[in-house]
Amino acid sequence: MYDDPEFQAGYRQLARSEQGLAGAPEWPDVAALLPGLSGRDVIDLGCGYGAFARWAAEQGAASVDAVDLSQQMLSRARELTSDDSVVTYRQADLDELDLPASSYDVAYSALVLHYLTDLDRLLRTVHASLRDSGTVVATMEHPLFTAPTAATFTELDGRRVWPLDRYGDEGVRVRDWLAPGVRKQHRMLGTLVSGFVGAGFRIRRVLDWVPSPELLAADPGLAPEVDRPTFLVIAADR
Amino acid sequence: MYDDPEFQAGYRQLARSEQGLAGAPEWPDVAALLPGLSGRDVIDLGCGYGAFARWAAEQGAASVDAVDLSQQMLSRARELTSDDSVVTYRQADLDELDLPASSYDVAYSALVLHYLTDLDRLLRTVHASLRDSGTVVATMEHPLFTAPTAATFTELDGRRVWPLDRYGDEGVRVRDWLAPGVRKQHRMLGTLVSGFVGAGFRIRRVLDWVPSPELLAADPGLAPEVDRPTFLVIAADR
Repeated sequence: MYDDPEFQAGYRQLARSEQGLAGAPEWPDVAALLPGLSGRDVIDLGCGYGAFARWAAEQGAASVDAVDLSQQMLSRARELTSDDSVVTYRQADLDELDLPASSYDVAYSALVLHYLTDLDRLLRTVHASLRDSGTVVATMEHPLFTAPTAATFTELDGRRVWPLDRYGDEGVRVRDWLAPGVRKQHRMLGTLVSGFVGAGFRIRRVLDWVPSPELLAADPGLAPEVDRPTFLVIAADR
Repeated sequence: MYDDPEFQAGYRQLARSEQGLAGAPEWPDVAALLPGLSGRDVIDLGCGYGAFARWAAEQGAASVDAVDLSQQMLSRARELTSDDSVVTYRQADLDELDLPASSYDVAYSALVLHYLTDLDRLLRTVHASLRDSGTVVATMEHPLFTAPTAATFTELDGRRVWPLDRYGDEGVRVRDWLAPGVRKQHRMLGTLVSGFVGAGFRIRRVLDWVPSPELLAADPGLAPEVDRPTFLVIAADR
């Protein structure tokens, strides 16, 4: 649906599209989980407009293999990338992706894993594609965000509450987000973590992303994230 | 508060107190994460009435070091244990527990970690107390259960929903459960998993416990567990 015109129009408005990494409040905490990228071979799974791929190039990455399903996003990413000696953009469906074995040092993925129908397959593929010292850092929509029938806050006794249900009912969720009928896959947090383990990874960090008190003071609009995080970050080593 | 008379009276009524392991719907899934106990040295952190300790002895454990804070629960556990050649019950505060190094093969803990103020300390202590091939299986109250201001289901548009808030606000929660004023520590799921990793453990499995369709058909009263699990299980290897 990233090639749907209505979705595209809405997506471009999002702060993270307009401003790249600076528009993503979780980015500093995600970056802190990444190793130094200088001289490293990096794969970016679901590169979107290429903000991370360009940042990785700036950090001195030897190569960035930037993969996305959306031709429109790849076009825009290529437009925004002045130096193409490091970053290679290419189209592929992450649900069917094949990767060369032992070829990357760092795998990164931002906010796409919750769209995949066969996450375990991708995680095994990524594990095999990493060198022995390789590592993965992935962000995804938090299971608390994907779970409920009605994914909007409501009020109870004067408090903002997130009406959670169906957390244990894994599978498809259809949402109207920028465009109608966006399909996501809800998985419990334990399933996600165990999926990385099952693919052979050693879990390094699991982060339910919530704003720090300092960030919250600077941007009070993030307060709902304390009640119910939108983002989950998993860092794991090969 | 386990020695509070009112709390004790209520606690004894719970199915899991009356029936031991058979009264805990999550038990078969927890047991499946345990290694064979025959000939093993086991520590039970928060043994309660000793149901697990006696089961471990039946499985052929070489020894079971069963620790609890509550003298009343330990008394009852001793009453219920006919053969005391394998199980040793003793009183200790898990927040201050010291253990001998490299002395156990299996650490088990059921539904007490959410009471501890210094979980990281206990996890490091347990890690050091395990032999190299050792493993830990721990159940605890799920962060979704401990998080909210009001920990009771409510109704929204005809659906049963769990009014989640404060998930990202870690720290004390005071509940009226069997007795008034029970103090728990709310931690996010990522914090719990990362706590095991930080203590040196390698995560083997994280399980948000929800009833299987078969169990749900047999016991429809478990349906709320699908909307919001009560139990989290973490299995990790030294």
